[in-house]
Amino acid sequence: MRRILVVHGPNLDALGRREPSIYGTETLAQIDAKIVAAGARRDVEVVCRQSNHEGDLVTWIQEATGTFDGVLLNAGALTHGSLAIRDAVVLSGVPTVEVHLSNVDAREAFRRVSVLADVVVGRVMGFRGASYTAALTALLDRLDSE
Amino acid sequence: MRRILVVHGPNLDALGRREPSIYGTETLAQIDAKIVAAGARRDVEVVCRQSNHEGDLVTWIQEATGTFDGVLLNAGALTHGSLAIRDAVVLSGVPTVEVHLSNVDAREAFRRVSVLADVVVGRVMGFRGASYTAALTALLDRLDSE
Amino acid sequence: MRRILVVHGPNLDALGRREPSIYGTETLAQIDAKIVAAGARRDVEVVCRQSNHEGDLVTWIQEATGTFDGVLLNAGALTHGSLAIRDAVVLSGVPTVEVHLSNVDAREAFRRVSVLADVVVGRVMGFRGASYTAALTALLDRLDSE
Amino acid sequence: MRRILVVHGPNLDALGRREPSIYGTETLAQIDAKIVAAGARRDVEVVCRQSNHEGDLVTWIQEATGTFDGVLLNAGALTHGSLAIRDAVVLSGVPTVEVHLSNVDAREAFRRVSVLADVVVGRVMGFRGASYTAALTALLDRLDSE
Amino acid sequence: MRRILVVHGPNLDALGRREPSIYGTETLAQIDAKIVAAGARRDVEVVCRQSNHEGDLVTWIQEATGTFDGVLLNAGALTHGSLAIRDAVVLSGVPTVEVHLSNVDAREAFRRVSVLADVVVGRVMGFRGASYTAALTALLDRLDSE
Amino acid sequence: MRRILVVHGPNLDALGRREPSIYGTETLAQIDAKIVAAGARRDVEVVCRQSNHEGDLVTWIQEATGTFDGVLLNAGALTHGSLAIRDAVVLSGVPTVEVHLSNVDAREAFRRVSVLADVVVGRVMGFRGASYTAALTALLDRLDSE
Amino acid sequence: MRRILVVHGPNLDALGRREPSIYGTETLAQIDAKIVAAGARRDVEVVCRQSNHEGDLVTWIQEATGTFDGVLLNAGALTHGSLAIRDAVVLSGVPTVEVHLSNVDAREAFRRVSVLADVVVGRVMGFRGASYTAALTALLDRLDSE
Amino acid sequence: MRRILVVHGPNLDALGRREPSIYGTETLAQIDAKIVAAGARRDVEVVCRQSNHEGDLVTWIQEATGTFDGVLLNAGALTHGSLAIRDAVVLSGVPTVEVHLSNVDAREAFRRVSVLADVVVGRVMGFRGASYTAALTALLDRLDSE
Amino acid sequence: MRRILVVHGPNLDALGRREPSIYGTETLAQIDAKIVAAGARRDVEVVCRQSNHEGDLVTWIQEATGTFDGVLLNAGALTHGSLAIRDAVVLSGVPTVEVHLSNVDAREAFRRVSVLADVVVGRVMGFRGASYTAALTALLDRLDSE
Amino acid sequence: MRRILVVHGPNLDALGRREPSIYGTETLAQIDAKIVAAGARRDVEVVCRQSNHEGDLVTWIQEATGTFDGVLLNAGALTHGSLAIRDAVVLSGVPTVEVHLSNVDAREAFRRVSVLADVVVGRVMGFRGASYTAALTALLDRLDSE
Amino acid sequence: MRRILVVHGPNLDALGRREPSIYGTETLAQIDAKIVAAGARRDVEVVCRQSNHEGDLVTWIQEATGTFDGVLLNAGALTHGSLAIRDAVVLSGVPTVEVHLSNVDAREAFRRVSVLADVVVGRVMGFRGASYTAALTALLDRLDSE
Amino acid sequence: MRRILVVHGPNLDALGRREPSIYGTETLAQIDAKIVAAGARRDVEVVCRQSNHEGDLVTWIQEATGTFDGVLLNAGALTHGSLAIRDAVVLSGVPTVEVHLSNVDAREAFRRVSVLADVVVGRVMGFRGASYTAALTALLDRLDSE
Repeated sequence: MRRILVVHGPNLDALGRREPSIYGTETLAQIDAKIVAAGARRDVEVVCRQSNHEGDLVTWIQEATGTFDGVLLNAGALTHGSLAIRDAVVLSGVPTVEVHLSNVDAREAFRRVSVLADVVVGRVMGFRGASYTAALTALLDRLDSE
Repeated sequence: MRRILVVHGPNLDALGRREPSIYGTETLAQIDAKIVAAGARRDVEVVCRQSNHEGDLVTWIQEATGTFDGVLLNAGALTHGSLAIRDAVVLSGVPTVEVHLSNVDAREAFRRVSVLADVVVGRVMGFRGASYTAALTALLDRLDSE
Repeated sequence: MRRILVVHGPNLDALGRREPSIYGTETLAQIDAKIVAAGARRDVEVVCRQSNHEGDLVTWIQEATGTFDGVLLNAGALTHGSLAIRDAVVLSGVPTVEVHLSNVDAREAFRRVSVLADVVVGRVMGFRGASYTAALTALLDRLDSE
Repeated sequence: MRRILVVHGPNLDALGRREPSIYGTETLAQIDAKIVAAGARRDVEVVCRQSNHEGDLVTWIQEATGTFDGVLLNAGALTHGSLAIRDAVVLSGVPTVEVHLSNVDAREAFRRVSVLADVVVGRVMGFRGASYTAALTALLDRLDSE
Repeated sequence: MRRILVVHGPNLDALGRREPSIYGTETLAQIDAKIVAAGARRDVEVVCRQSNHEGDLVTWIQEATGTFDGVLLNAGALTHGSLAIRDAVVLSGVPTVEVHLSNVDAREAFRRVSVLADVVVGRVMGFRGASYTAALTALLDRLDSE
Repeated sequence: MRRILVVHGPNLDALGRREPSIYGTETLAQIDAKIVAAGARRDVEVVCRQSNHEGDLVTWIQEATGTFDGVLLNAGALTHGSLAIRDAVVLSGVPTVEVHLSNVDAREAFRRVSVLADVVVGRVMGFRGASYTAALTALLDRLDSE
Repeated sequence: MRRILVVHGPNLDALGRREPSIYGTETLAQIDAKIVAAGARRDVEVVCRQSNHEGDLVTWIQEATGTFDGVLLNAGALTHGSLAIRDAVVLSGVPTVEVHLSNVDAREAFRRVSVLADVVVGRVMGFRGASYTAALTALLDRLDSE
Repeated sequence: MRRILVVHGPNLDALGRREPSIYGTETLAQIDAKIVAAGARRDVEVVCRQSNHEGDLVTWIQEATGTFDGVLLNAGALTHGSLAIRDAVVLSGVPTVEVHLSNVDAREAFRRVSVLADVVVGRVMGFRGASYTAALTALLDRLDSE
Repeated sequence: MRRILVVHGPNLDALGRREPSIYGTETLAQIDAKIVAAGARRDVEVVCRQSNHEGDLVTWIQEATGTFDGVLLNAGALTHGSLAIRDAVVLSGVPTVEVHLSNVDAREAFRRVSVLADVVVGRVMGFRGASYTAALTALLDRLDSE
Repeated sequence: MRRILVVHGPNLDALGRREPSIYGTETLAQIDAKIVAAGARRDVEVVCRQSNHEGDLVTWIQEATGTFDGVLLNAGALTHGSLAIRDAVVLSGVPTVEVHLSNVDAREAFRRVSVLADVVVGRVMGFRGASYTAALTALLDRLDSE
Repeated sequence: MRRILVVHGPNLDALGRREPSIYGTETLAQIDAKIVAAGARRDVEVVCRQSNHEGDLVTWIQEATGTFDGVLLNAGALTHGSLAIRDAVVLSGVPTVEVHLSNVDAREAFRRVSVLADVVVGRVMGFRGASYTAALTALLDRLDSE
Repeated sequence: MRRILVVHGPNLDALGRREPSIYGTETLAQIDAKIVAAGARRDVEVVCRQSNHEGDLVTWIQEATGTFDGVLLNAGALTHGSLAIRDAVVLSGVPTVEVHLSNVDAREAFRRVSVLADVVVGRVMGFRGASYTAALTALLDRLDSE
């Protein structure tokens, strides 16, 4: 049975509280529940974690080696500058998909830079909570086809 | 019944012939067939078009207004510089998703620039032919939820 | 009798349909009629053409040599990057005025770059359809004074 | 009866003395006379002022509020850097047209930058003294249509 | 008895007339009265001056040497480029605080550059008229502690 | 009774130990005591926190929503790059003032960039410990006037 | 028998009409005749095509796969920005030489950028019509030596 | 007896697991043992610490003041952007050497930037685990010679 | 008899008062006396003027046409940005030498940019008051040799 | 009888020893022999020189004036930065062709810059040793046609 | 018996004469003696050379192939721009270590760029004369471990 | 008796042969004779040297320490990039004046950069051969006044 790790970065714990026009109205718990359910429909175990600390994300991604078959990673604002997370993605060797709730490329200029973009297998953004489920499906399809 | 337009830009007619490690081995006809089938499963008519001429893409996208409910747009190399296509997307007013077979952000530097990125509703890249079906599903989900 | 060529680029065929706050509510046909009328008042024949294809614009401008006394050129989004149109303007040797409906310098940053600006005799922008008639008058005055 | 203010910036008092291939042979007095005459034909009072001092231009533009219906502004070399004039244009609230005798975009690189360009309603350049009369007409047309 | 010079640059004479959401509704005279009153409460004489001419600001700041114990300087749009005012601040040797009504760093990009920022003792911005009184207090505290 | 949160970032726990010419000789505890006292004089409760961990700052700022009426934020070196703190400020919705002991714009070039500057209501810098009390006063004045 | 495709881009159809100091006085037909003759001397069939449309160039280059042994490509002004032609060169897999009549590096700054330069086998420029025959010889030598 | 602190940053706990061509095959424990042994040979106590959290590194470096005679710092990916660690190095006042296992200047462009480089006494890179022992020797020699 | 105009810009009236290590200890009056004396030795009339207003400098330089045989121009901080003074130099047609007391290229980065440098006949800097006399001699030698 | 000078710059003496995939397997002596032979077939004397010293190249190129009818110049790594060689090419007045063994535009970024490119009559690159013979032919053709 | 070449670039012959706070007080001869002695302790022959001519450095490095087992290279100011030396290092194929007496990254900005950094096996800087002995040890260790 | 060294860089040996509109018609020998004569009039011995080799210039400048009282340095094209010459100027400790025949700031963009400008005591340019004599006088005046 496949196992997928979902990693949420800083401020995603505040989802659903403010700026719904950008991030939607769902809380992180509601989104996590949907990803887990979508995983279950394909017989995949999904584990979700969130932290505001870069160091936690680095550790979780590193530890995914040998434990998870794939990672869905929404590093939040750390997407744009955390080379430590980037290094962890490369070192882990686990296929990772970069996910964003909003279309980050249609917002402030600094959000158009992703230091993760060239070390992930794919990117999905702009569909709010559904970005995760779309990314999960695409990743599983890719794993199935290899 | 919903109608979705799929627009493929320059060189996508050559798919399946070369560089399979980047673009996969499917031909454009095979990919189109899969998108149409995926649309059919959700009772959606999908129309697919390809051209090497920027002017054709501009015209097709413009004409989508009032005719199609959404556009999946893979503008190929025109993604990185065609302001005319960008203008057409804005003028059409039809929700558009930017799609790429490869993870363009992991290739040459010039491919990291997309002049379309901030006028589309979402972006999906890196899953080869499956990028289109994932984008179709996500777009339909979004249209359903509005 | 003088002859003036008016060349409209990509997406100008969609005028009047969307974004009236930027482009006004007139259609291209209505604007063309006004330019022709303004020309007639000064005994000048005005010919208007539009295409979404850069190659058509290049050909029309080239062919203006020896056929037209001046060109009013609104290259639309191609203004910002088409070196081929720029070359055609230089090669044609026909006095050309760059025209824009909106004040392009007050919009997105990429619209502030015009690769045509230094090869035209003058520039008029910001007066919607009236930009063309003002440019026509100014160009004729200039031709008269030489 | 409408009133239009014409503001000329530094060095325009020297017009007609040197570099006629760029600026033409008319003196500023001759150009002012033509603008006043063109205004008179449309029952508009035109007032012309010139100064080499940025501070004078700022004051005149500010004071135009409630006194003039529009401003034709040729800020000369201050066009390229005077944020104080830019602020005055915004604060005055009077519709302003940026005017240049020469096609400044076809000259030195530093002249391609205008800090006024995005706060004016339109721009006319390249027709020597006739740039002002063309701008006057266009501005009046615009005011008439509102 | 201490003496403080308040120097207001271009367009600040127009305060209270337009854009109240940015600059507030107080006129410059009202703000000046408040600064003078705040000074009086601490037995400090406050002198306020305004000009749209860079040269006046340069002269006033130079002349502050030996006459004033401190300067509150709101150079308006000249903040972003006037090296002459910068030189005057350095030459005067009088402790100077840079003051802005609005948070200039939250507005247009060009306002994020201050050529004065590294030659003043401190900066206060974003509190409208109260920016001056806060700067006055802070400057006096600093002078007291030396 | 109003409540204000003071958040100090990395290395501010070392205050008073080194580089007194830049940061002064007060320890953080001494500065905190002064801010609390200044708050007390206006019947405001002030709570002070410090951490070297970006994640702690993110969490504290987020949690200020509904708990505090304002935030004084000295993010230390994180000021110049932490988009996660920036996002937290925006998401919290609590009026925040950026505070620095030194005039950061007069030091190394990298300190002139603040990723927080355009999401705070105001900025106060250069007055050492007194920057905080000045910021507190200004923020309270602003809250009073709304 | 070897077959070589010569592809001429926009405005090359106007050769010989204007700017002879840059491009020489030969027409495109005359140049084509010389290339064909030079090919005949080495028992090589040369086919020459010209278009002002980027899309035509993309198609012709793509279709060269399996049909031609080499391509001489003068993309004209499209040299400096057409990523679609670049992609076609890579996808075709046919050895391609970039050719220019003039020394493009000695002209305007924008002509110093070639998006084709790093995907061709060699470059020849500055010898007017003779650039093509030199490139033909060099390409054939290279093909002979492999 | 001298005491030296060795600080390892993010992802160095994963050493020896992946990318041996870059980082070598030794684990961090093995490297630490060698540094401690090398220290012992010169009668120096070496203490080694690792964390994925920037905040921990900041705290450890700050606390080295008065406790350690020198620091060997391999901040990993935080080398390229952590101004907080840079500030801690300066504030600690303890001579610090920047160490890297690989020649970071021969890898991705972003690794060529070190925000620590100008506040350390020296830099050693490119010798894998031996970079630390070389740095230890050099630092001790320097301390001996002062 | 030849006539030379010496133009001093902003803050040069403060010479001799502060920063003698950069500007020397002479006052402007003392320097002017020396230039006049040096002129007298070569039978040349020297006229010296100073203003803190850019507009005055523009007017003086313009008016030099036909009145003076040469200009020695020390525009002070306006050297680095005043395009109006640059235009005046060009329009005047009078040979102008750029003079600086200090070696401006050895000071702050912004002083290395001179917008006058490419429109003057020569530049002399770094010799304090003697820069003017050296420039006077060199200019007269040049005028003599033509 | 015509005379052509061939100038080889630094490291070309090492040709044939390493990196044959880039530079081919011929030694410089073998290449020189082929150029001389090709010259002989057209009754042209060819002289070949190599040095690792920029000063030697400058001297040889300068001395070509009046002695040689043309220069083939492969300045090696000095191509990318030697303004002294560039000046020598201009001063010599002898028609010069820039030659490279490899397609330098397809290698490291720094090799895409040539400070010689805009002062030579033409450029040939990418055909290894045959680049020289192609350049020789092209240069002779050009000299014949003048 | 191993042989190591030490190459010193421009101005290193002047060591010990000026700026001891940067470079130390040892002469080059003293430093060379220490390196030779350190080599002798490991049974390694060390040969030291210095030149102010880039061409000499290029030649010596090229000639190291097959003669020396490693190179310690302090190219002095040529470090920051000599692509010819860089090419020589690559062509020689001999493992090379970049050495600097001072921590060049803590000095002027231009010294932070090294065009050699990505073609050497390692870099050691900041320990004055001891930088060479540390580099020698590290290089020998590396050679021993292969 | 004072001694001054004049150092001429690459291509200055060719003076008088070409481009007289830029460099004048005097040969280097004629210019040297004038400088020597000017020195003699002030009882100063002047020694002049020229080389096309950067290494020679470095050596001569270094050796000036203790031998010459000042250096007039025209490094020719090496002015714009030779950090080795810059280092030599600093190390020599001899007051140096940068001299140019032409106004280098009015020519190509690359000539506006001087890596020597901030380490010399003054700069004189634009007066052809007279630049040297003016620089000599100014330098002697400066030495006299110290």
